[in-house]
Amino acid sequence: MAEHEVLIENSLNLLLSEKKYASLKDVLSTMNPTDVAEILKNMGRDKLPLMFRLLPKKLAADSFVEMDSEEQELLIKGFSDTELKEVLDELYVDDAVDVVEEMPANVVDRIIDQSEPGMRKEINEILRYPENSAGSIMTTEYVSLREKMTVSEAIQKIRRTGVSKETIYTCYITHDRNLIGTVSVKDLLTEDDDLRISEIMNKNVISVRTLADQEEVAQTLSKYHLIALPVVDAENRMVGIVTFDDAMDVIEEETTEDMELMGGMTPSDKTYLRSSPWDLFKHRIPWLLLLMVSATFTGMIITSFENALAAQVILTAFIPMLMDTGGNSGSQSSVTIIRAISLGEVDFKDLCKVLWKEIRTAFMCGLSLSIVCFAKIMLVDRILLNHSEVTVPIAASVCCTMLLTVLVAKIVGCTLPLVAKKLRLDPAVMASPFITTIVDALSLLIYFGIANLVLFR
Amino acid sequence: MAEHEVLIENSLNLLLSEKKYASLKDVLSTMNPTDVAEILKNMGRDKLPLMFRLLPKKLAADSFVEMDSEEQELLIKGFSDTELKEVLDELYVDDAVDVVEEMPANVVDRIIDQSEPGMRKEINEILRYPENSAGSIMTTEYVSLREKMTVSEAIQKIRRTGVSKETIYTCYITHDRNLIGTVSVKDLLTEDDDLRISEIMNKNVISVRTLADQEEVAQTLSKYHLIALPVVDAENRMVGIVTFDDAMDVIEEETTEDMELMGGMTPSDKTYLRSSPWDLFKHRIPWLLLLMVSATFTGMIITSFENALAAQVILTAFIPMLMDTGGNSGSQSSVTIIRAISLGEVDFKDLCKVLWKEIRTAFMCGLSLSIVCFAKIMLVDRILLNHSEVTVPIAASVCCTMLLTVLVAKIVGCTLPLVAKKLRLDPAVMASPFITTIVDALSLLIYFGIANLVLFR
Repeated sequence: MAEHEVLIENSLNLLLSEKKYASLKDVLSTMNPTDVAEILKNMGRDKLPLMFRLLPKKLAADSFVEMDSEEQELLIKGFSDTELKEVLDELYVDDAVDVVEEMPANVVDRIIDQSEPGMRKEINEILRYPENSAGSIMTTEYVSLREKMTVSEAIQKIRRTGVSKETIYTCYITHDRNLIGTVSVKDLLTEDDDLRISEIMNKNVISVRTLADQEEVAQTLSKYHLIALPVVDAENRMVGIVTFDDAMDVIEEETTEDMELMGGMTPSDKTYLRSSPWDLFKHRIPWLLLLMVSATFTGMIITSFENALAAQVILTAFIPMLMDTGGNSGSQSSVTIIRAISLGEVDFKDLCKVLWKEIRTAFMCGLSLSIVCFAKIMLVDRILLNHSEVTVPIAASVCCTMLLTVLVAKIVGCTLPLVAKKLRLDPAVMASPFITTIVDALSLLIYFGIANLVLFR
Repeated sequence: MAEHEVLIENSLNLLLSEKKYASLKDVLSTMNPTDVAEILKNMGRDKLPLMFRLLPKKLAADSFVEMDSEEQELLIKGFSDTELKEVLDELYVDDAVDVVEEMPANVVDRIIDQSEPGMRKEINEILRYPENSAGSIMTTEYVSLREKMTVSEAIQKIRRTGVSKETIYTCYITHDRNLIGTVSVKDLLTEDDDLRISEIMNKNVISVRTLADQEEVAQTLSKYHLIALPVVDAENRMVGIVTFDDAMDVIEEETTEDMELMGGMTPSDKTYLRSSPWDLFKHRIPWLLLLMVSATFTGMIITSFENALAAQVILTAFIPMLMDTGGNSGSQSSVTIIRAISLGEVDFKDLCKVLWKEIRTAFMCGLSLSIVCFAKIMLVDRILLNHSEVTVPIAASVCCTMLLTVLVAKIVGCTLPLVAKKLRLDPAVMASPFITTIVDALSLLIYFGIANLVLFR
């Protein structure tokens, strides 16, 4: 696929340099908007406006939507007012809003100026909703029907008006602007022409409120296998729909955000290849600094046990293993719980159930690890590597610490994301890096506490 | 929502205990299959068969599909052959395959026995494809048209046969079983009745091969905003489609799997609340054991520098901070790259580009961290905490190690996932836990190397 694309780009570049515009246009016209956008992006900013002008009107608008905001801005700045108007007239409202949201103020003004009055009003309406809400990602274009229509009247209405609607496959039945039912085009096509919509419509409608979080919107749509999810205001009046492809984009975006947080980064809007090192730096340094400074505590714990360490330097050798095992155990639990929360499977009210499950799991993990660890220390460190200072009391201290650390790590790891959820923070913040820092300090305290008891009494 | 469900479950339980079956049936009939499945699950295994028998036939089949395999197995074991046949007749082929895949052999035999011959053949065909391939998740039910049909003939065909097809909204035009075009119901409804399909069909068809990985299938469908993606065999013969809702399930499943791997667990099919502590233990202990044993190297590195540590115990105090910062830096890079790989944004061929970007980022991060770290050590550790043994050479050694560790960590973190991809391993395996272990060892080597140079020459 990737090599295939390089091939096409090479021929297009050749055609362009030979000024064979007619052939260029023909080749581009056979392609899918998504691919056209990608190819134009790869061909470079200088060739973009020329290539774009070769596209047929509909393909131009569809490819425009698929481009990154940088290319869109470049194109708009080069457009005459007429050209801008032509592209805008072909866009769906929600796509136009997506474009507007990424542009600088002067470009936004030009877009709003050149839009049809109807679209201008709808763009402004959608822009009023808070970022990441259902209202901000919906489109106001959908097919609405009345319950008294017959099936054939409904089909006529779709045939008449459907061409400008982003999705026609689910139609919405409204009464005084209230959403009272849905009917699918499949039902319309397979039912008798003379039936009334009220007889065949599905009255048990799944909908979301305008202010619902976009993640909830996407999860709901996915849970009920819907092509589009209706969005209603506080009075149950229908205001728009979110389609499945936008929901898929939301899921992708939210997953990336969760993973970035889990990896100890602040979320970024840009794709990796688009991000400069400076962008990456800005998103990575806050957590690194915070975690480095908080590691001061681990340092303080170690210095306060300096005498014990000076007497038994071998104790130091096991610190990395204990800290890592604690960190890994904790992040296993936190990652599992963070994912379960974001799939809507567990909530703060399940804390006890989760804790009890994690404690039993931790006990099994901790016990197995301790046993293997004891065997490893005695066989490898003591006999194979011939470290005479590795005594049974030292091995026992290490293994007890192991068991307790795993227990503590898993308890901390499963509790913090649930508490974050309760406090309306993003649970993904409570992932590995954060847990590791806490568990490190706790595991050292446990280690030195036990070592003091066993070795220096 | 959740409280709302508890309310409904309570009334249903009351109705059940009062044997008011007619009302129970009426209430259940107003609901969505997804919700019915959830409510029946929550009401408990003993009530499940009785409740299920109250459902109207179509709703029963649809709810059955939404249930977990445990409930499905329980129900099938209680079904008479006639009941089983009734449910099976209502299922789509791909849903039937999903059920079959999770059942023990004797239950599978009963299902195959009770299926219609046509469905039996199709189930067996889909079962032949390897797990997680396009073939294994597709459905063989779709609408196929001929290019010579007129629009109105096509609509007639959909109206006649569409009711049994999982999705009718994209129709596939085949010639000698070869896929040559697609047409959407929206186009059919909005074009002139007398046009030929060949005149309005989209000839630039996006399709996947039967053996393509399900993740690729889902990404392709999402990239091109398709309602369904056609699956073709090696000779471009059409064999089935994958619909958007199944693609969304695949994305959810693959995301969970990636996150589990990133958290150092082997992926599990069961949801968290369904997993017993023993299940969790089995998925968590392998990585914990492996990482604990591999921490032997860090221990060996420390023991080999035992003399240096005994002379300057304060060096130990900075080990956790250096190891954690290295681990965090590395996991930032690995998580970013793993995500970019799974979104199809970077590939092994981008290794140099990625490396150059990460090195510059690492330099900025490392430098900032070193400066802050130096200031922190001199101000907090030396002056505030009054540790006289914290000298400028020691602080300098720590800060040089910091810079180098961050650099090494980010290089390792971005390289390993790309190498894994090249070796056809899952890049997500190369996430935090794995990187941390490698970076720990490297950071210790750097630390003691520098300390030896600066302090003990």
